Amino acid sequence: MTYIETLGIKAQQAKKGMMKLGTQQKNDALLAVAQGLIQDTDAILEANTIDMARGIENGMDPGLLDRLKLDASRIEGIAQGLEQIASLPDPIGEILRMQKRPNGLMIGQKRVPIGVIGIIFEARPNVSADAFGLCFKTNNVVILKGGKDAIHSIQALCASIRHTLEVQGIDPDCLLLVEETSREATVELMKQHQYIDVLIPRGGAGLIQSVVMNATIPVIETGTGNCHIFVDETADLEKAIEIILNAKTQRVGVCNAAESLVIHEEIAPKLLPKLTQALIEKEVEIVGDKKARACSSSIQEAEPSDWGKEYLALKISIKVVSDIDEAIEHINRYNTGHSEAILTKDYDHAKQFLEEVDAACVYVNASTRFTDGFEFGFGAEIGISTQKLHARGPMGLLALTSTKYIILGDGQVRK
Amino acid sequence: MTYIETLGIKAQQAKKGMMKLGTQQKNDALLAVAQGLIQDTDAILEANTIDMARGIENGMDPGLLDRLKLDASRIEGIAQGLEQIASLPDPIGEILRMQKRPNGLMIGQKRVPIGVIGIIFEARPNVSADAFGLCFKTNNVVILKGGKDAIHSIQALCASIRHTLEVQGIDPDCLLLVEETSREATVELMKQHQYIDVLIPRGGAGLIQSVVMNATIPVIETGTGNCHIFVDETADLEKAIEIILNAKTQRVGVCNAAESLVIHEEIAPKLLPKLTQALIEKEVEIVGDKKARACSSSIQEAEPSDWGKEYLALKISIKVVSDIDEAIEHINRYNTGHSEAILTKDYDHAKQFLEEVDAACVYVNASTRFTDGFEFGFGAEIGISTQKLHARGPMGLLALTSTKYIILGDGQVRK
Repeated sequence: MTYIETLGIKAQQAKKGMMKLGTQQKNDALLAVAQGLIQDTDAILEANTIDMARGIENGMDPGLLDRLKLDASRIEGIAQGLEQIASLPDPIGEILRMQKRPNGLMIGQKRVPIGVIGIIFEARPNVSADAFGLCFKTNNVVILKGGKDAIHSIQALCASIRHTLEVQGIDPDCLLLVEETSREATVELMKQHQYIDVLIPRGGAGLIQSVVMNATIPVIETGTGNCHIFVDETADLEKAIEIILNAKTQRVGVCNAAESLVIHEEIAPKLLPKLTQALIEKEVEIVGDKKARACSSSIQEAEPSDWGKEYLALKISIKVVSDIDEAIEHINRYNTGHSEAILTKDYDHAKQFLEEVDAACVYVNASTRFTDGFEFGFGAEIGISTQKLHARGPMGLLALTSTKYIILGDGQVRK
Repeated sequence: MTYIETLGIKAQQAKKGMMKLGTQQKNDALLAVAQGLIQDTDAILEANTIDMARGIENGMDPGLLDRLKLDASRIEGIAQGLEQIASLPDPIGEILRMQKRPNGLMIGQKRVPIGVIGIIFEARPNVSADAFGLCFKTNNVVILKGGKDAIHSIQALCASIRHTLEVQGIDPDCLLLVEETSREATVELMKQHQYIDVLIPRGGAGLIQSVVMNATIPVIETGTGNCHIFVDETADLEKAIEIILNAKTQRVGVCNAAESLVIHEEIAPKLLPKLTQALIEKEVEIVGDKKARACSSSIQEAEPSDWGKEYLALKISIKVVSDIDEAIEHINRYNTGHSEAILTKDYDHAKQFLEEVDAACVYVNASTRFTDGFEFGFGAEIGISTQKLHARGPMGLLALTSTKYIILGDGQVRK
């Protein structure tokens, strides 16, 4: 039996007790875990120092280093996240659509845990506590596999959480950490369908691709975002500039940031000079097609590969189109099924865009940056699904639940 | 480019037109397709004759031959199935839970097609028309891969459907049939995640296992059913015998038939003599553990492998337990997550069984044979899911849909 298999068996054993925890017990434990993390701040920061020193030594990118770094106030933020999860309504146990059939059978759907959830993530240590909190609140056992760059920080966070659980009289194996960080261990984990019910990868395109190709466990794909904004010929120019600046620059490096503009040729000559100036003031590099470049000298020539690129940086591509059909066709060809927006005053165009664009989130007259579980009012987020099965778009607690039919009879047999 | 890839590309091309079909157009087309099948009865039966002759030549099992066989009245049944699908409400386009956020954004979920659905099935030719009807009603393109034993019948059915669609002015490529029946073609199909959004295997354990191991496309697993009935010590004896006979013998060889009984030791001596007599009258072979055999001489000794077996035949296993906890533990160990029943008059035991048994459908005081989309009131069924993601239990039209968030703003940007 391999190390990964023993984790799978532990998870299955923990599942039985986990399924029986009630709402009050879960919420009390989450609050205790939050307190425990604050108390263990020193140990967690010490572990984080090791990861940070290694990161600097290995020449890690400053953006990644920032994601890796913990301090007292970030640990407080993590604890507050758990407290917020405790305050959310408990979705488990709700009975949906119970109806009486003509033969007298009462048939309804009960919301239940999924069972064991595997989460593979990269260098953000806070994901370990967030993911634990969401899985715990929904009575799921979680197996975490974090990136090796953050392993000491993740180990310290998980040790603190497991210790508090044990003090609370809860089986600490409802949170299991894969301590082997090799690629082989990750691939082996993806194939444990006899022990793990669902796999959620949280990371870059390489990780997601590896999961899609290797996993035998059902996967919820949390994808990349090559998000477009289409500026229709009737758009309000001022609002368009404000929304585009927000979607591109309010936060760079996130999946719901805009990466590409599609602009109607009638509005391009009016919009582009002002827009490019505003973007340049924010230090955004701009590439575009021939028609776009004819409207502004600040636009560099786009390569064909630009249309499919998620820059995650201060860069944007611009394509000018002759009508909404061309815009939708371009977007449906190059988007990654994440978040797409139209800016328009035209009712029919808004309706057509909402109907025909194939993405998790389709916007009219708003920034794509709102694609987020908190902004959608879920009070939490485990990721943003770009697949069509089970959950699509920002995922809150409900995405971590399944249902089972319960059927109440009084002796019915089938005729 | 391989043959399978060309089918994927055709499906993607057909998807665009398919997504635009309205309810009336879809229902009219389904009725026309039903009429077309009746008109093409001779050609379909001629093709079926070839499959039947081959089947007999190859010594096909009589049960399988019966599933393969078509006649005028079965074709009428297939046509009626399509008419019924036409009469069902159209789920596509419904907007769920649209709510206003504090910043004025209106956020709701719109029910949309999944896109392209791959269905791999075995020797029942009628699955081709049923699956087409359900996918068509939900604006999905379907790629069918049927078993080679039924290939002529399936080809004839699909040719008739495609011809009618073309006459109706609808792109016939919304129904694509894989004409290569080799194992290699099937495995290649399972890996076309760039063209196919979801894969639904309908068949035996071997097919399902192959899909789980090979597919890179998200799968909805429609599994086998090792269904149990637990007879609690308070059960009504007469009703228990009636329900068990129904669940075992009303139809053999279906996934919701009971395969195993778990009986409380206090009721076993009263129940088993009468029950085994009734089962033997129905020609059911009975195996059981030591405690069961002590109650009736008609019970043969069960092998350890019996507990995990889906007989799909006139055979049943019996285990006697000392309490409900042991019953639930046994069931959760050996069941396949399909349908499980408790027969009891005890409120607490009913509640515990409903809560703790991990299966798609959990019954109190009724036959497991009701696990079926029609019996649940869906008006149709594409299969019974035994997985926990997306859909669990009998799947009707809703299981073939996804959602997308639509967000209506008036200039909102994220702060």
